[in-house]
Amino acid sequence: MKSLLVLKPDDNNPTPLYLQFSRKLEEAINTGFWKTDEALPSERAFCEVLGISRVTARKAMDLLLDQGLIVRKQGSGTYIAPKLEQPLSRLSSFSEELKQRGYEPGSRWVGRSIGTATQEEMFRLGLSPDSQVARLKRLRTADGVVMAVESSSLPVDILPDPALVTDSLYRYLDERGTPVIRALQHIKAVNASPTIAELAGIRPGDAILLITRIGYLENNVAVELTYSYCRSDYYDFVAELRR
Amino acid sequence: MKSLLVLKPDDNNPTPLYLQFSRKLEEAINTGFWKTDEALPSERAFCEVLGISRVTARKAMDLLLDQGLIVRKQGSGTYIAPKLEQPLSRLSSFSEELKQRGYEPGSRWVGRSIGTATQEEMFRLGLSPDSQVARLKRLRTADGVVMAVESSSLPVDILPDPALVTDSLYRYLDERGTPVIRALQHIKAVNASPTIAELAGIRPGDAILLITRIGYLENNVAVELTYSYCRSDYYDFVAELRR
Repeated sequence: MKSLLVLKPDDNNPTPLYLQFSRKLEEAINTGFWKTDEALPSERAFCEVLGISRVTARKAMDLLLDQGLIVRKQGSGTYIAPKLEQPLSRLSSFSEELKQRGYEPGSRWVGRSIGTATQEEMFRLGLSPDSQVARLKRLRTADGVVMAVESSSLPVDILPDPALVTDSLYRYLDERGTPVIRALQHIKAVNASPTIAELAGIRPGDAILLITRIGYLENNVAVELTYSYCRSDYYDFVAELRR
Repeated sequence: MKSLLVLKPDDNNPTPLYLQFSRKLEEAINTGFWKTDEALPSERAFCEVLGISRVTARKAMDLLLDQGLIVRKQGSGTYIAPKLEQPLSRLSSFSEELKQRGYEPGSRWVGRSIGTATQEEMFRLGLSPDSQVARLKRLRTADGVVMAVESSSLPVDILPDPALVTDSLYRYLDERGTPVIRALQHIKAVNASPTIAELAGIRPGDAILLITRIGYLENNVAVELTYSYCRSDYYDFVAELRR
């Protein structure tokens, strides 16, 4: 049973009420109080239940909108945006990460095939010319919303039949006894090509994060080259740094 | 004394010569064999010294071009692109990081001022309304080339006079006895606004990395809010992940 009362700001706290309220809302969203694409209570409902003013509610919601935590849909209210806070230090699968946050992870296959390695695949995976690679291309979804477009290439001796990967590539590799235990990720910002834009549901030219991942086996052999185009409005890549 | 002979591919190695050569070139570039904006030897020079074919040299260079490690300038040859491989786990200053890689770090001030905290600054730094903040805005350069546009805000009790920061903000804070020891960085891709584009030397709408950093003192108080717009062609944000 969800009680909105946990969101009530404290009149005796010197921090402005709208800031208190928006921080409480942010925390509630981040801890899965509402689900992705679920409608938030209306501003009026917040005001009535929490005894806050309309201005306070509006200013708090505007802050969350600016941070991309919620989206307004014309005529139907305010919704939780899917948001994946991805730590940049742990090699966790997309599915694991989403489940932990209470989202329902999903994949839509765009293609699974075998072909001759491109120059880039040869270079990144240390393959000789004419090597065969297995390729997986899919849309990664959270509660049905496309979060990322992902293309992976692996040498065929690691993945002889790409159709055998049904859900998690890493789980498949684990079960085959060739787990990827370490990866290097490079992060860039790129303008979405028309193809990527259409798959990701954004406009061509929109900025999108491109993560290039090279995954290594225990014996330090590179076996995975993955390009992930991640919607910047949904992903929140986070790193904690220390001196 | 630089000898190009370290770049010579091994005829007895089954890896194609152009791949060997491009890997050796990549390593040489990454370890500072040449300086930023220094001209590379011509393809002809490589061929003569290393005894490789023109096709091998050309294919290797094309690979490096695709990776943004080198740039061709019309009529004057090939140059090393400034490239900053930035680990996402260590809180190092821009200046330290560049020096380690053999670049000459620099800053061009765009503005240093004191003003009333914006809503975002209040929110991120936990300030009350009407608080004063010190703001620093500058271009970060490597060997004179603009790599990033950086705007920092700090409460005035931490930085009473922004003009006192001449070079490194972190060194200033260290010397004042209020070092930032931990930071959270959020990474997004955004389309450059006309203002940012002009400062960064790119076209409006070009994708650029936006790093939002919140820096904390030893006692866990947030004292630094920094937005860094980093040219994606020059920065290489890298994270090593383990399971």
